[in-house]
Amino acid sequence: MNFLQHLECTECGKKFSSEKVQTICEDCDAPLFARYDLKRIEDSIDKEDLRSRYPAMWRYREFLPILEDENIVSLGEGFTPIHELDRLGRDIGIKNLFMKDGGVLPTGTFKSRGLAMGVSKAKELGIKKIAMPSAGNAAGALATYGSRAGIDVYVIMPKSAPEACIIESYMLGADVFLVEGLLPECGKIVEEGKRKYDWFSISTTKEPYRVEGKKTMGLELAEQFSWELPDAILYPTGGGTGLIGMWKAFTELREIGWIEEEDLPRMIPVQAEGCSPIVEAFHQEKRESTKCKDPETIADGIQVPKAFADRLILEAVHKSSGTAVSVNDENILKSSKELGRTEGVFACPEGAATLAGAKKLLERGSIEPDENILLYNTGTGLKYINTYTENLDIDIPVIDSVEEITVR
Amino acid sequence: MNFLQHLECTECGKKFSSEKVQTICEDCDAPLFARYDLKRIEDSIDKEDLRSRYPAMWRYREFLPILEDENIVSLGEGFTPIHELDRLGRDIGIKNLFMKDGGVLPTGTFKSRGLAMGVSKAKELGIKKIAMPSAGNAAGALATYGSRAGIDVYVIMPKSAPEACIIESYMLGADVFLVEGLLPECGKIVEEGKRKYDWFSISTTKEPYRVEGKKTMGLELAEQFSWELPDAILYPTGGGTGLIGMWKAFTELREIGWIEEEDLPRMIPVQAEGCSPIVEAFHQEKRESTKCKDPETIADGIQVPKAFADRLILEAVHKSSGTAVSVNDENILKSSKELGRTEGVFACPEGAATLAGAKKLLERGSIEPDENILLYNTGTGLKYINTYTENLDIDIPVIDSVEEITVR
Repeated sequence: MNFLQHLECTECGKKFSSEKVQTICEDCDAPLFARYDLKRIEDSIDKEDLRSRYPAMWRYREFLPILEDENIVSLGEGFTPIHELDRLGRDIGIKNLFMKDGGVLPTGTFKSRGLAMGVSKAKELGIKKIAMPSAGNAAGALATYGSRAGIDVYVIMPKSAPEACIIESYMLGADVFLVEGLLPECGKIVEEGKRKYDWFSISTTKEPYRVEGKKTMGLELAEQFSWELPDAILYPTGGGTGLIGMWKAFTELREIGWIEEEDLPRMIPVQAEGCSPIVEAFHQEKRESTKCKDPETIADGIQVPKAFADRLILEAVHKSSGTAVSVNDENILKSSKELGRTEGVFACPEGAATLAGAKKLLERGSIEPDENILLYNTGTGLKYINTYTENLDIDIPVIDSVEEITVR
Repeated sequence: MNFLQHLECTECGKKFSSEKVQTICEDCDAPLFARYDLKRIEDSIDKEDLRSRYPAMWRYREFLPILEDENIVSLGEGFTPIHELDRLGRDIGIKNLFMKDGGVLPTGTFKSRGLAMGVSKAKELGIKKIAMPSAGNAAGALATYGSRAGIDVYVIMPKSAPEACIIESYMLGADVFLVEGLLPECGKIVEEGKRKYDWFSISTTKEPYRVEGKKTMGLELAEQFSWELPDAILYPTGGGTGLIGMWKAFTELREIGWIEEEDLPRMIPVQAEGCSPIVEAFHQEKRESTKCKDPETIADGIQVPKAFADRLILEAVHKSSGTAVSVNDENILKSSKELGRTEGVFACPEGAATLAGAKKLLERGSIEPDENILLYNTGTGLKYINTYTENLDIDIPVIDSVEEITVR
């Protein structure tokens, strides 16, 4: 029941064995993609077969790179809900507005998908020690699945990382080390640890399987929209693995005929104005981004000066006839409150950015009022209590009696 | 497609119309239960029909009190995963140990079930303003579903409530008011607001439908265990609505023949040693609990001096041949770390208490090593970062170079 054939360089097409531990193509310094025998997948299952399967990302077993079921490391992640945002859609002038919600995954963020897959494959390949530099949510997700797999996890984080992410990783059994400095300094220590302690580094897209976990976002969307995808998908883009993964899903589904060419969605990365290398590259019609010099935004998860897989992000945007948009922090915060107050969704700032992006694109004419528009929320707002209290002017009244309450 | 017949006093059996807003039986000061035409439910669906339904608590539509689908206020909550805790089970000597995980519900806690249902029914009954005194997670869940329903929400919280819960409620559009004092002071303001502003109070079990939402935990367990339930269910018990709701589910399923008498689980409330009125009442063979005078535990959610529905909790324990157990804070904290480090589950202190309880009951001989034991985790640890940092001696090393790392 496995259809994985090999890994392939996304730049030069060179093939690599999937039976050994691989990282990137060292000739091109480019990510590797898992390739499957799609013809055999097509012959072996029918999309109707999915219906009775357990509602987790593992229901797409045939499209995933794990050879033996016993290596799957899982907490039931995936098949997350899609919320109709009817009231909010009416307010802003989009008739059919949806949000896919990654906030209800284990660890509260979309990082669970990539790391459930990456750790499962690491287990299958016999890896015993995994390390990662992280300033945020990926650390907790790696700790989660590492501990569930019984694999040692080493997390190197900037001392300035959010306390919630540090404590989460600690409680989940990772060996956590803090470093004065930022992510690059943490990355250096991981590189040294690879040599010194035989660590396997599981950094975004420098390892070929996390993207296969993110791919399940696209598989789920296709199934949940009855194989007719929305017209556009707005995705908060830092490293961009999610956008790349979704596009890979759609490409594979297209190839086996489960979705039609005309149903492919436009892929739209949303970035912060203070850090928008992909948006700039898109508008300058470049195939690679230029490193952002002074990145600054409250949305940590999209504060990525240059994504390692920037070419793949831009390629997906182009091939899908998408566009790209940046939004400012003020509108991110405003959108987050709107999502909470109008629809009951407590989103992370990155997720809220997609709503701000939709408003801007509607104004610009890049999306139409009667299109089906999907926003992707990458995590729960519960992990960002500090971001919101520090950046919003929140004033909760203290009262002595009911008389002091003004009712709406 | 609706089978709700009426409401019934759990003490005197008096019937109340379900077409009007109801609270409690004022003769007995006791909670009301929704009663259904179980015979017609039995005739109208088969348990196999459930398989192809959407994986949320609304899949049990026939057993729920909402008359019209359009009144369902939902964020896709329910059908949460059950984790096998094999490694931890081996460590402590229980062969088949499971955990049902409420941490992946919207709002990160099990409160979502009760309030999705309570708010849906409030919407159906035409209620426009809901209020609640809360020191924690219920506030965020009410704000969530209130905002999704377009119903005004007023939350009265102690000034000392966790910041995360206050900010969550604010972001989700509730009108939040803080009060010097504890929950009883907040409750007084809600009582006054009922008269002055026509608020509907949605306090635990003083409103008949939240328990129907919690009932879905039991329906899910039955279906997920293929209609053969575990031997015992350990549930962290404060107000106890979850335990009462699960038992109500099992009773209804038993009545229509979907589960057998011998498959009914033993219901086991777990409380903190610093606040264990139910455990004491159980061991003293009383049908009602005595108010705990100086409640003290780090597990806020089970710090309930006297549950309003204590008789129903004790009744479920007795009828199910269950038992009751209390655990100390030290063991709660220890169990939380074990869950994280051994199984990758970041539980709230209340959820961790059930693991501490299982160890104690195994020692005492109240559960057997070869029984199927289910622990219920009521929420994600992400909402309790402060509890863990304040009560655990967490020391994360700051390093300058890879040389300072000791590998396992």
